[in-house]
Amino acid sequence: MVAALFLSAVLPGRAAELNLMPWPSHVTQQEGFLVLGHTPQIELTGGDERVNHALTRFLQNLSLRTGVPFDHHFSGVPAGPHFVIRCAGPGLRVQALEEDESYHLVISQRGIELTAANPLGIMHGLETVQQLVEPKPQGWVLPVLQIDDTPRFAWRGLMIDVSRHFMPLGAIERNIDGMAAVKLNVLHLHLSDDEGFRVESKSSPKLTGLASDGLFYTQDQVRDLIAYARDRGVRVVPEFDVPGHAVSWLVAYPLLASGPAPQGLVRSEYDTVRPPFDPTQEATYELLDTVFGEMESLFPDRYFHIGGDEVDGKYWDNDTSIQTWMRAHNIKDNHALQTYFTKRVQEIVRRHGKEMEGWDEILDGGLPKDSLIQSWRGAGSLADAARMGYRTVLSAGYYLDLMYPASQHYAVDPLSGKSAALSSEEKSNIIGGEAAQWAEYVTPENLDNRLWPRLGAIAERLWSPASVTDVTSMYRRVAVLNRNLEWLGLEHQASSRRMLGRIEGDDMPPQLLETLAMAVEPVKEYDREKTQGYDGEAPLNHLVDAVSPESDSARRINALAQRAVYDPSARPELRKWFIQWRDNDALLEPYLSVSILRQRLVPLSQSLSVLGTLGLAALDSIELRHPVTLEQRKGQLARVEGSTAPHAELFLVVAPAVRVLVEAEPGAR
Amino acid sequence: MVAALFLSAVLPGRAAELNLMPWPSHVTQQEGFLVLGHTPQIELTGGDERVNHALTRFLQNLSLRTGVPFDHHFSGVPAGPHFVIRCAGPGLRVQALEEDESYHLVISQRGIELTAANPLGIMHGLETVQQLVEPKPQGWVLPVLQIDDTPRFAWRGLMIDVSRHFMPLGAIERNIDGMAAVKLNVLHLHLSDDEGFRVESKSSPKLTGLASDGLFYTQDQVRDLIAYARDRGVRVVPEFDVPGHAVSWLVAYPLLASGPAPQGLVRSEYDTVRPPFDPTQEATYELLDTVFGEMESLFPDRYFHIGGDEVDGKYWDNDTSIQTWMRAHNIKDNHALQTYFTKRVQEIVRRHGKEMEGWDEILDGGLPKDSLIQSWRGAGSLADAARMGYRTVLSAGYYLDLMYPASQHYAVDPLSGKSAALSSEEKSNIIGGEAAQWAEYVTPENLDNRLWPRLGAIAERLWSPASVTDVTSMYRRVAVLNRNLEWLGLEHQASSRRMLGRIEGDDMPPQLLETLAMAVEPVKEYDREKTQGYDGEAPLNHLVDAVSPESDSARRINALAQRAVYDPSARPELRKWFIQWRDNDALLEPYLSVSILRQRLVPLSQSLSVLGTLGLAALDSIELRHPVTLEQRKGQLARVEGSTAPHAELFLVVAPAVRVLVEAEPGAR
Repeated sequence: MVAALFLSAVLPGRAAELNLMPWPSHVTQQEGFLVLGHTPQIELTGGDERVNHALTRFLQNLSLRTGVPFDHHFSGVPAGPHFVIRCAGPGLRVQALEEDESYHLVISQRGIELTAANPLGIMHGLETVQQLVEPKPQGWVLPVLQIDDTPRFAWRGLMIDVSRHFMPLGAIERNIDGMAAVKLNVLHLHLSDDEGFRVESKSSPKLTGLASDGLFYTQDQVRDLIAYARDRGVRVVPEFDVPGHAVSWLVAYPLLASGPAPQGLVRSEYDTVRPPFDPTQEATYELLDTVFGEMESLFPDRYFHIGGDEVDGKYWDNDTSIQTWMRAHNIKDNHALQTYFTKRVQEIVRRHGKEMEGWDEILDGGLPKDSLIQSWRGAGSLADAARMGYRTVLSAGYYLDLMYPASQHYAVDPLSGKSAALSSEEKSNIIGGEAAQWAEYVTPENLDNRLWPRLGAIAERLWSPASVTDVTSMYRRVAVLNRNLEWLGLEHQASSRRMLGRIEGDDMPPQLLETLAMAVEPVKEYDREKTQGYDGEAPLNHLVDAVSPESDSARRINALAQRAVYDPSARPELRKWFIQWRDNDALLEPYLSVSILRQRLVPLSQSLSVLGTLGLAALDSIELRHPVTLEQRKGQLARVEGSTAPHAELFLVVAPAVRVLVEAEPGAR
Repeated sequence: MVAALFLSAVLPGRAAELNLMPWPSHVTQQEGFLVLGHTPQIELTGGDERVNHALTRFLQNLSLRTGVPFDHHFSGVPAGPHFVIRCAGPGLRVQALEEDESYHLVISQRGIELTAANPLGIMHGLETVQQLVEPKPQGWVLPVLQIDDTPRFAWRGLMIDVSRHFMPLGAIERNIDGMAAVKLNVLHLHLSDDEGFRVESKSSPKLTGLASDGLFYTQDQVRDLIAYARDRGVRVVPEFDVPGHAVSWLVAYPLLASGPAPQGLVRSEYDTVRPPFDPTQEATYELLDTVFGEMESLFPDRYFHIGGDEVDGKYWDNDTSIQTWMRAHNIKDNHALQTYFTKRVQEIVRRHGKEMEGWDEILDGGLPKDSLIQSWRGAGSLADAARMGYRTVLSAGYYLDLMYPASQHYAVDPLSGKSAALSSEEKSNIIGGEAAQWAEYVTPENLDNRLWPRLGAIAERLWSPASVTDVTSMYRRVAVLNRNLEWLGLEHQASSRRMLGRIEGDDMPPQLLETLAMAVEPVKEYDREKTQGYDGEAPLNHLVDAVSPESDSARRINALAQRAVYDPSARPELRKWFIQWRDNDALLEPYLSVSILRQRLVPLSQSLSVLGTLGLAALDSIELRHPVTLEQRKGQLARVEGSTAPHAELFLVVAPAVRVLVEAEPGAR
């Protein structure tokens, strides 16, 4: 046990080389390998049908990854190493938070032993084995090791907004495969918003008939999706957002709106009539009772998410009947009115057998303690909820649509910061975290690109010991994950390439657009709204939509420049990049103005050229020990700064490489 | 009409810039563009349900290609240009050779008019429109033009061998989409061979139960596949190969074998017991009558392919009961015996309502004239069949599994060579051609890569006027096709990248393997058998399986070197390539020996380095006018020659670039 602990979480020695993500709780690696035979002899006991499915999938995926048909037993004679899988018991009929997800894995030169208490542990263990396979001269091998692994948090989620841009079943399913690969276990679907209601309701067919644009999941599809997710150890938590973000409901039921009825589904930022439900009408609760009742039996998970975020109070302020009702019922303000609403909804949710989840706006001491709070406005609400005795899940810091780098999400720990001061009992209320992917600017085409590989870093934060924080190791392993996810059919790389190809068209020489593309990232946070307001009908086929939210090349080049300050051996490669940037614009420019997909890239390409020129001058100054004056350096830094101005919802992210060299030039400062 | 003719087939002026493949019979392009609106106003009359499906698919594919959601009518208000589609009548219930596939297309600045006599013409026309769409500053546009288009040959096919490596339905379907994109209209499935019987037979379940390894199409899947193909203007012609290549049948029915029963399905070159059917037993014809009857009602096409190729006569020679029977029936040799068999089979095929097709070994003047001959052993049999009054289809010259470049297939014309001397009536018996993809060394993973984009060149040969022969134009348009096929879900590029990624693994710097990969091609013709005999269980996950059969980069570099002989401006780029090749081996070599997927690449990498060094020396000699001696040149040429030796079923195809420069060095020769 001491030896195992020694190797836990700190990624030392040989174990650091393993391509595991998330990193397990305990790893002990020994010398040697197990060579995988053509037809493994598999012995499986216990569990439930999910273990069989997971094993079939494991062999299929292994075959895809290796190109060796492990899933076909042509010759009929099993040979090669033994693979023993023992599962102590079946899992619950509906996957639950409390189930034991741990597993124990022993790989020796003779075979593999995977044991777990629950099918979930077997599934996680099979994903771990999959990640360990690599080709050696002897064939495909696994390292000899022992792993004891258990998640740090029980709730490891991903929310996908399927209202603003509808995501077809296939897009969701392939991302469930991705989630399972990194041991995430909750898929939260944001199923209704101002832009559309996305699940068939048999009780209230107007909800999709009038309020979905024809794009929604049938109930059969939902059942398929839930079965698909369950088979992969993933719970599906549905969200129907009320009382705000509810225009779709109110397009179908306009009499339940606070103030004026909406003029139709919200399609763009110009559709500004977005009333919430009228919480003072009994008919509101009758509708919710009917629809929530229907949806609570469709979605078997224990939790039912009722949204509750961003209620626009002005509609309540301006509705005289609401104001009269509030006075009559002694409700002093909009927060109290929402709490009244939330409690009524909570009763509905509970009557149909579920526990209520909501965004942190619903937090109020008066709510029953079985409510689950999803903290998104900041880690403060997480700590508050935990202190007040509510179970809570962190999403602040995990919003993938804000386009932050993986390292930034990786640094967010649900139990640090404001939560650090909590008692351990209070801390136990913090049950995990959830990445969120809002879809104003995401389509099925680039959904995967927006999720992966950054989601891997969040998955590791939520699974691995708190001490696993090495960013360099994380990025190395994320890069491996990035490649391996492609074998599962995820499109994050392939669709990005196709979208770049669409922009290149048939007239451009290769490499020119790529040189620009690898130097840019989408603008961060909510900056895109400033230059391109939300429009659900606008094509999302520009460079900002095609590139990854985080440029690996830029990160590498920026690091190279930091090293180049003191290490001359880093400079030749850097010089090559700078020359390429400097010269790219002259070659690229003629192609930019002739296509609607390229014309807005002109200033970015020019700025990249400026950065190349400045970078070369700085390298020269450093290498030739040619000092610059204070004015010169100031001027250079100003030009570097100027190069980072956003255009076409993108900005150059390689400026730091040049900045660090300008700052390192000899001379006055 | 004169103007239209003027522009036909010779790709002159502006029309040469259109990205069409296959090139249409007549194109007249004018100035100007039609800008596509967000929600086109479509007016469709006539045809049958296939026209509606084709239109839906057209809008979906257009949306995928452009990233503009043309298929969603969010705002409900159709606007933008008119798109008028008129189809004179419905097509036949079972698509037939004789149907009119022509179409007439007019694109003006106001709209699109597409007219055809038959739904097949509309489908072809929609593919043409799809190929014409391109982004301009105004948006996505179509050029103003008029096209009158009709195919040169009625039979434009592709054969896929699904016996040696089974190809799942999805792999076949996505390639049907590719076929439709280039106006191919016959999918010939080679459904049985020594390696397996690949269609469910309800009358004779042993055929898949004992002789398929569990990998076969159910009858429902076959019906789905046929409907899928029909919807895309593609006929499905089934082949069940008899009397040779029939081990799978005989594993199920061993008593019908000539001589010894087979020892099991053929799995590798070492399984050498491969008897044909015994054509002297009545039970043979009883079985064929039952199974062919069943399959002829499952596959609605008029033609039914009975194989007939490569019967190994030694089994008949060595079977005394067959010999006795032959003497008793006055059958003088094995050819006569096969003809006896073929006639009996032809009666069976005809009794069930179909016409018989077979490989050219069945050709014999005694066959009924409604037999169709597929010529594969050489164009001689094509001319012979046509002269003898049989309809015939050319496959010799179109074998994609032989790894020849597109230009080689493109140069093969069914009506040239030995067919040129035929009378025009005889020529009319030559109804088309068929590409063939045998699958000894192909899996579902690289099937697309083996077919595309070379198949586009064959499709053009079979559709376009005979005068369309410009290879440069063909390669330019094939490159466009190559990219656009990706939007249909074809995997020829994506899977090649993934397979290269598998070989690179997680330890290699990028670019090193790519530098080698772009310089090699798989060995040609049947050379792979010499070093890697067929083995159905062997993983096909090596570099030879990952790379394209034809290296675009190599072709470009070889052409660049030819130019560099007299044009100094071509030399700097060439020098860059040579330096990269020279230096690549030292960087790549450490990674080669450590993986089973790379270790056999060592000599190729070394030879590439040799070519780089020789190329640089030759460039120096040319530029510095430094003459070489006869001995030196001979030595250099010998080293160039030596570099082309095959290793790992690959060979370097960039040697011509170096050879042409060595030959151009000043000095004695």
